[in-house]
Amino acid sequence: MRPVDIIIKKRDGLELSPAEIRFFIEGYTSGAITDYQASAWAMAVLLNGMTDRETTELTLAMAASGETLDLTGVVDFALDKHSTGGVGDKTTLVVEPIVSACGLRVGKMSGRGLGFSGGTLDKMESIPGFRTNLSKEEFLLQLKEVGLVLTGQTDDLAPADGKLYALRDVTGTVDALPLIASSIMSKKIAAGAQRMVLDVKVGVGAFMKNLDQARALARIMVKIAKRVNRKAVALLSNMNQPLGNAVGNALEVKEAIDTLQGGGPKDFREHCLQVAGNLLLLGEAAGTLRAAKQRAAAALEDNFAFERFRQLVIAQGGDVSYVDEPAKLPSAQFIEEVPSPRAGYLKWIDAKEVGETSVELGAGRLKKGAPIDHAVGIVVHHKVGDKVEKGEPLFTLHANDKTKLTFARKRILAAHKWSPKKVKPLPLFYGSVK
Amino acid sequence: MRPVDIIIKKRDGLELSPAEIRFFIEGYTSGAITDYQASAWAMAVLLNGMTDRETTELTLAMAASGETLDLTGVVDFALDKHSTGGVGDKTTLVVEPIVSACGLRVGKMSGRGLGFSGGTLDKMESIPGFRTNLSKEEFLLQLKEVGLVLTGQTDDLAPADGKLYALRDVTGTVDALPLIASSIMSKKIAAGAQRMVLDVKVGVGAFMKNLDQARALARIMVKIAKRVNRKAVALLSNMNQPLGNAVGNALEVKEAIDTLQGGGPKDFREHCLQVAGNLLLLGEAAGTLRAAKQRAAAALEDNFAFERFRQLVIAQGGDVSYVDEPAKLPSAQFIEEVPSPRAGYLKWIDAKEVGETSVELGAGRLKKGAPIDHAVGIVVHHKVGDKVEKGEPLFTLHANDKTKLTFARKRILAAHKWSPKKVKPLPLFYGSVK
Repeated sequence: MRPVDIIIKKRDGLELSPAEIRFFIEGYTSGAITDYQASAWAMAVLLNGMTDRETTELTLAMAASGETLDLTGVVDFALDKHSTGGVGDKTTLVVEPIVSACGLRVGKMSGRGLGFSGGTLDKMESIPGFRTNLSKEEFLLQLKEVGLVLTGQTDDLAPADGKLYALRDVTGTVDALPLIASSIMSKKIAAGAQRMVLDVKVGVGAFMKNLDQARALARIMVKIAKRVNRKAVALLSNMNQPLGNAVGNALEVKEAIDTLQGGGPKDFREHCLQVAGNLLLLGEAAGTLRAAKQRAAAALEDNFAFERFRQLVIAQGGDVSYVDEPAKLPSAQFIEEVPSPRAGYLKWIDAKEVGETSVELGAGRLKKGAPIDHAVGIVVHHKVGDKVEKGEPLFTLHANDKTKLTFARKRILAAHKWSPKKVKPLPLFYGSVK
Repeated sequence: MRPVDIIIKKRDGLELSPAEIRFFIEGYTSGAITDYQASAWAMAVLLNGMTDRETTELTLAMAASGETLDLTGVVDFALDKHSTGGVGDKTTLVVEPIVSACGLRVGKMSGRGLGFSGGTLDKMESIPGFRTNLSKEEFLLQLKEVGLVLTGQTDDLAPADGKLYALRDVTGTVDALPLIASSIMSKKIAAGAQRMVLDVKVGVGAFMKNLDQARALARIMVKIAKRVNRKAVALLSNMNQPLGNAVGNALEVKEAIDTLQGGGPKDFREHCLQVAGNLLLLGEAAGTLRAAKQRAAAALEDNFAFERFRQLVIAQGGDVSYVDEPAKLPSAQFIEEVPSPRAGYLKWIDAKEVGETSVELGAGRLKKGAPIDHAVGIVVHHKVGDKVEKGEPLFTLHANDKTKLTFARKRILAAHKWSPKKVKPLPLFYGSVK
């Protein structure tokens, strides 16, 4: 087998065999196949597509390229969730404790934030001491003994995907559905996930800009899961406006804690209940989605979920006093509440603008490995459809730099649009794929 | 400007601006743009195509990536010819002396053979002492004083093309018309060519397998020439069977000398007259193609062309006694005439099989820089359409290895096909593009 023949076969629109896909991914992982061959191949995949069979084989080949976890000795069904990334998406911080509070063990390996979408690990690291670099052994032990883990992916997990993703990023080959789907699913499968909820975000603040694309991605991922005897439910959720109110690491942790204690923004709470409900259903902790969501809501009301979150923080070395007194969490030097310059119904709060402004304030990173400021961010006080009066608080900026604050005020104001007429709230979900 | 944005633009099927193309080629030449970005871009070009404007800009950018020759001080019109490569194609050895004999100066930079198609330089190097590595200054001086030059391309000529071609070869991106056309034309333009004949070969023994492809390539190249105020005529010539009879370096030199002395195979002679005629017309040495071909034929009959060939060999340090007594040229240890195993009309002599067998005998190279054996090769004695009797000589093998000879005999026999019924000869040309 020659790499160039595999590239040519895909270039000519033919289906690659499982052996060819494995040869290519193994070769790329070992370095026998070069970056310039992999990027030409990725462009051919982007432009010519892949069958479900090819995408599944690619997923399996990347999953097999490094260490794999087997959780079957610790749990009945290894549950997992994945979000394709959005603005204000602190869902994992609430959903995993809920699921744990409902009696199911759940361990998750998360990535870091890049670009305008924040990363779960970055958020959790607002809590001093919280470790996100557990070893495989620590992961398994904590999953068994505490029942709840939230840590970073090890470099050994699907290294082919890590290598290929970095290449795709600089060669214009990110936006290929088979490559996106296999990238996500290979990590889930390598991490041992057997039943999973995939939160596919759609909208200006998401990777998938339109519903057709998002649904196509969801369908491929669910199909891959089926083909390898796993179960996946994909939810198509709205990412045109931020999820919840808080955007920025410590601000999001506070909002998550609020939600875990039965409060929190209505949209975010409902989003978490939907994701948690689907996970509980997959984990057979409830017979129907309705019953599962009721169990999830109860876990919030009775503070069981919050207590699980506390145990998670303690287990991973975090200072739990920051959870008990969120006011202790990193706080910005300049906090400015910005009033609405006009009255009307909000018809648009641009999630991407909010996300990018938050990054510019220092809450995120544009380059892998860059440091972030846990304290800064934005709290938007309204949702599309809300009626606001002139002078009423519209959003609050948390900044550690005056110039950045001024810039952010202007940009976030421009991200809001008003209508004199009533505006319908945006839906939370556009449906699901099973 | 970011390289990745240029890749994405081409990926999305948009037209690149001249500035973007120049930025990309300059960056690739300097190393600022990586191989893995260039290969992804090349795949996008292959799958999405390029407009004539883009292809022309790409040609100019590659031509400008290194040294360029300006022949206007030495000649009225810098003439050139190019063949896309075939089996038994020793046309340059005959055509350039004809053109020179008709009073026009002509200098050509040739490439080496790779794969089943032979290279002009390799053929000329059958003559001991013949130098193919003239400097730019030597080239210009000889063109002025001798009026005839045949040397190798310097590495400084369109280095972007050399680099990109090597990359395309291992990334499945060779077969892209805009890339093929710009590769050929960038070298011609960098070498200073103003009026040129492009011999586009079509058939099993050529790079272009079918007439539509070949015509499309011809059209693009002629258009590029027009857009940069040069003139090109493209001839579409048959490469299903070998051109002439001889395949292999010294064997082809002998056949060329024979032709230069008024003999040679009928098809090869006619091919040379057509190419030379078009060059003479472009060089304004004749008013019509008919008159130009008559001049060319006269140059063969009166031995003027042969004398020009002698002067070329002398000028470049070759031992002219080998031209005067071709029997001195390298000769193989084993020469075997193979009789026809049956009677009939020849309906197929596979040029690719003949070319590849010749390479296996040692006449060509599969890898750049590999040594070649000038003595070995094949002489096919017939053309498609010929009637042969059983036992009549079908082809002669020239080998330096018994095992290879046995193998070659079998393969060349299998490359011939007979018919009991009359078979029409193959056309020499399928037309031309101006």
